[in-house]
This record gives sequence, C-alpha cells and structure tokens, in this order.
Amino acid sequence: MNSELSSQQVQDIGEQGLLERLQRFCPPEIIGDDAAVLVTAPKQSLVVTTDVLIDGVHFSDVTTSPEDAGWRAAAANLSDLAAMGATPLGITVGLGLPGKVRVSWVERLYQGMTQCLQKYNISIVGGDVVRSPVTTLAITAFGQVNPDRIIRRSAAVVGDAIIVTGVHGASRAGLELLLHPELGQDLNDEEKTALIRAHQRPQPRLDVLPILWKILTPNSQLPIAGMDSSDGLADAIIQICRASGVGAVLERREIPVPKTFNHWLTQEQVLEYALYGGEDFELVLCLPQELASALVQHLGEGAAIVGSITSGSTVLLHDEQKKFPDQVLSLSQGFQHFNS
Amino acid sequence: MNSELSSQQVQDIGEQGLLERLQRFCPPEIIGDDAAVLVTAPKQSLVVTTDVLIDGVHFSDVTTSPEDAGWRAAAANLSDLAAMGATPLGITVGLGLPGKVRVSWVERLYQGMTQCLQKYNISIVGGDVVRSPVTTLAITAFGQVNPDRIIRRSAAVVGDAIIVTGVHGASRAGLELLLHPELGQDLNDEEKTALIRAHQRPQPRLDVLPILWKILTPNSQLPIAGMDSSDGLADAIIQICRASGVGAVLERREIPVPKTFNHWLTQEQVLEYALYGGEDFELVLCLPQELASALVQHLGEGAAIVGSITSGSTVLLHDEQKKFPDQVLSLSQGFQHFNS
Repeated sequence: MNSELSSQQVQDIGEQGLLERLQRFCPPEIIGDDAAVLVTAPKQSLVVTTDVLIDGVHFSDVTTSPEDAGWRAAAANLSDLAAMGATPLGITVGLGLPGKVRVSWVERLYQGMTQCLQKYNISIVGGDVVRSPVTTLAITAFGQVNPDRIIRRSAAVVGDAIIVTGVHGASRAGLELLLHPELGQDLNDEEKTALIRAHQRPQPRLDVLPILWKILTPNSQLPIAGMDSSDGLADAIIQICRASGVGAVLERREIPVPKTFNHWLTQEQVLEYALYGGEDFELVLCLPQELASALVQHLGEGAAIVGSITSGSTVLLHDEQKKFPDQVLSLSQGFQHFNS
Repeated sequence: MNSELSSQQVQDIGEQGLLERLQRFCPPEIIGDDAAVLVTAPKQSLVVTTDVLIDGVHFSDVTTSPEDAGWRAAAANLSDLAAMGATPLGITVGLGLPGKVRVSWVERLYQGMTQCLQKYNISIVGGDVVRSPVTTLAITAFGQVNPDRIIRRSAAVVGDAIIVTGVHGASRAGLELLLHPELGQDLNDEEKTALIRAHQRPQPRLDVLPILWKILTPNSQLPIAGMDSSDGLADAIIQICRASGVGAVLERREIPVPKTFNHWLTQEQVLEYALYGGEDFELVLCLPQELASALVQHLGEGAAIVGSITSGSTVLLHDEQKKFPDQVLSLSQGFQHFNS
C-alpha cells in the first residue's frame, strides 16, 4: 500500500467507493441485491444475535488495532451462537463512520472480522455503511441449531455439575498488561504475549459443540443449560441460576485460571479477574455429574467442574480449605453501561 | 405517564433498567438467552438485510417523531425483504444511546417499530443497547423465500416490461411540506396529510408478493428481476440495468405520481421528486409484457408499466409527446453519504 492510499479518508472515496473496497471481504454471490440469501439445513431452527460496539466505549485505538477490534467483534457474536448450541451461517455488518476515518483502518477492521470468520468457514453476508459522528460497528450473526439441542439459560436443575471451558481472567489480564506495560515484571515475553493474545484474539468455543453432542448422544432429549462468559464468569453463573430458579455453589480452587497468574497477581486479583474480568468467551454449561465428567475429560485445556447447582437462589463461593469465608456472588461488580 | 417518568433519562435507569422496559416489545419466549431462536419453514432459504441509521443523518426530531423514526426504520428493512421476494420472520435492533436520551423517547421509538412489524405478524426478536455519543439504530431483518422465487436485480432481460408499484415522489413531497410548511398552499389539509403520511409511515410492499406468485404460477421457473425504490426510482432502474447488463427506456408520462402534484409543483419538480425523491419503498419489477399487464391489473393504486428493458446500457427517459428531449438518467442526482 503506498502512502497516498494509506492516508486516504472515507470522505475521499464516498459511500460507493468504500462499499466497493469492502465487497472483496464478501463472497461474490451475495453482492448486489437488497438482501443476502443463505441456505439453511433442513429441520434446523434459525438463531440470531446482535451486538453494537462504539468507538471509545467498546474499543479504542489505544489498546486495540483495527484488526483486533474486528476479530473481537466477530468472536463475541459467534460466542453467542455457541452459547445457544448453534453452528454459524454468517454475519451482517452495519458500520457508522466519520468521514475522516482512514479507508485503511476500515479495511483492517474487515480483515480482522474475516480472519475470525474464516476459522469457521463463514463470511460477511451483508451490511450497511453510513456516515456517523462516531465509529459504530453493529454485527448480527445467524446460525442454525437442531431444535432438540438448543442450549438455554433456563434449563439448569438442582444437582447439575457446573462446567467451565478453558481458563478465566486471561482477557482481563491481557488488557491490564496493554494498559499498564509496567505490570507483570515477573512474566517472560511469551507469557505476556499469551495473555495479551487472549484479550486481542478470543476464540469462540464453537469447537465444544460437536464434543458436547457426542457425549449427549444417548441422552438426545436432555435439556442443556448454559451460556457464554462474555460478561464474566460470575455473571454467567448468576444469569443461569436466575433463569432456572436455582442457586449454585462454586469451589474457589476449582476455577481454572492461567498458570501464570500466581507469578504477578494477588489471590484477590486472581479471583476478581477470573470471576468479573469478562470477555473470555468461554462456555458455562450445566449437566448431570456423569456427563459433566465425560465432557471435561474430552475438552482438556483448563476445562473443569467448578461447582454444582443447588436449590435456593444464592450463588455461593466456597473454600474447601476454609481459608476464606463463604461469599455470596452478585452482579454488582459487573458493568452498568449507562451509569457513569 | 406522569411527569417524573416522562422526564426520566436513560442514564437514570441504566442498561439493565432500559432492557427491562424494552422487553415488553418482544415476545416473551425469546427473552433471556444469548440469542433468539426462530423456526423457518422447510425448503425456504434465509434472507437477511441490515440498515444503520444515525441521529442527525438519517432521522431528526425536527421532522420525525420517535414513533415515525421507528416505523420508517422497520419499514425500510421489510422493504428490502420484499425486494428479494421474502416473507419476514423478525428483526433485531441494535441501539446506541447517549445517557441523556429520555426513556420515553426510546419507548416511543420501539412503539413505532412494533406498530409497523405487527402489520406483518412479526416481532423484534433480539437486540443490544449500548451507550454512544450519538443515537444510532442498527436493524437487521430476516425473512424466508422459496429459492425458485428469489427476486434479483440481475435477472432483467431485453423486452421485459418495467412495472412500478404505487406512486413515486410522495415521500419526498411529504418531507418538503414538513420542512417548509409555507409550501403547498393550494393543497387542502387532507392532501397535505396524505403526502406527509407517505413520508412518515411508508408501507413496505410485502402485499405485492402473493399477487406476484399467483400470476407467475404457470411460470414457476421464471427468473424475476426487481428491487425496491428506497433510493429513488431512477436509482432502482439504473441498478437493475447495471446488474443485468441491459438498458431501459422509460416513458415520462407513465410514471405514477400523486394526483395532487400538479396543484403545487412545477413539471420539473414532479419529475425530480418521482425519479430522485427516494424513500417511497415501492417495488420495481421486470417481467414479460403479458405477465406485467396482468400484475398491474391486480395491483391497482397507481401501479403501472413505465417502460421496457432494452439492449445496451443507457437508461433513457422518453417523452412520447415529444415536448421534452430524450434524457439519459444517471445516479449523479442521488446521494453520496460521505461527500459533504
């Protein structure tokens, strides 16, 4: 890219010019009509989810390259599909842009989105580009799901084991390292990079679904409870409990965190990052104990049974070694976007 | 609504509070999971379309009440579905809001959207609400279509008649009357209201589809060319011609405009509003002459054959009475959103 091209602004090429540039990120067969047509498999239900991201609120050039902002936005939507048990079909992208945004910034955003989508063999299938005083990214993702295999927040029952995939807190730790490079002096470069990568390039856990279906094969009618942990692990468990009318007890030491956490974080920080850090995009699932054990065995990489569903309505953090008192988890440490 | 409630701002109730208020606009079964699940009919393809609307660019409290802004946004997306031959299934709504926006404004916006959707027995099936410096509305609509009945811009062939539904220019005229109340002195109140209504409450032409399928029954494999006229009638015809690699000739006097236009507009204004006004959300279809005549006969209310598809690539405006010279239509009078 020569310097003239790289400094070109959106207002220099207009809406049509920008659309032409962006069409190379879309499959050719979907371009040029009022809407995109997608083929769904027979007997599958349609699953849709949408996210809006605002420059300065949800992403910022300070911590996030346009490629990473694109990847993260796509990953968050695919994670919502995974949380429902759905296989992705495609996404649409609505973009609001100030005229002074560089065309190369927009192209890098689309590169990040398509890089994430390519992992799952899907594409950007439609969109809209408009002028706006603030850069705004609205993504809607579609997937399909076998109606017998829909994962719902409301399906947890007393006695279920609570399974979490992967580790929690890595994304938050990566963000802290980006914002405060003076932190993590005791980490080597590779360890730092891994945490930063967890923040910049989260992986939606669509890979969990086929493993889950395999384990559930003899129990095809079993309702599956779960959601993703995009708003934090504590939030996910509390939401599942609220929707299912149950409580939960979590075993403090069973919550999987990155191995490197103990090198540079206090025990309190480890717990805060893991429970309230958010944006790990892992799955939280509730299944009968035997199936849960089988699933964890297949998943590897930190997946663990972290507790169980109880009657009542409180979500309790318990320490088997009794070093810490029992603690009731609440959403209050979470975000309330509109309150300053 | 008491005055305390009506002056409440989004920041007073937070994201969760606002979501709870807005959930009453959604069917209860879709609330509370990471994504919405929709049932599609067998052997139908999925159709998706998305629009982003920005306060001050695409809508404004000066000319548009929140109810009307909501209706128009929903109608525009449903019109895109109609333009593909698709029956709507639902929409998702992504909303970016400054904290100072009144809760009642948001509720009125949702009322307008759901009023429009109710006409077609569909709902808001999901969404996202976030903080933003500028009010932003991102709508994605889903529909389903029989794969043999997809309407495409690229399917026009030489000799086809060009059919337009309804009248053109009414929405633009309504906007002019809103912006300049001193205009239209020769119109009575009812006539003014009808034009303003065309701007505020456009009707997506989903009603045309069953009539079209009925007429096409003996020709089930016939490719159907068309699109909607949301960006203007001239734009629609030019886009169809470009996509199909053909030209067109339009008969100036055949273009249906509101009867009241001649009372207050010059001939030049009538033509400009009809061809370039935009936002009439009518359909432009290309069909063999005989089928086109049958369709127009069934449609009524201004629908007309306005010309035919020709070889070549120019779109010519012709005057049978030779009062005006032939004129080549171009997109240059249309909008280029990013150019100031």
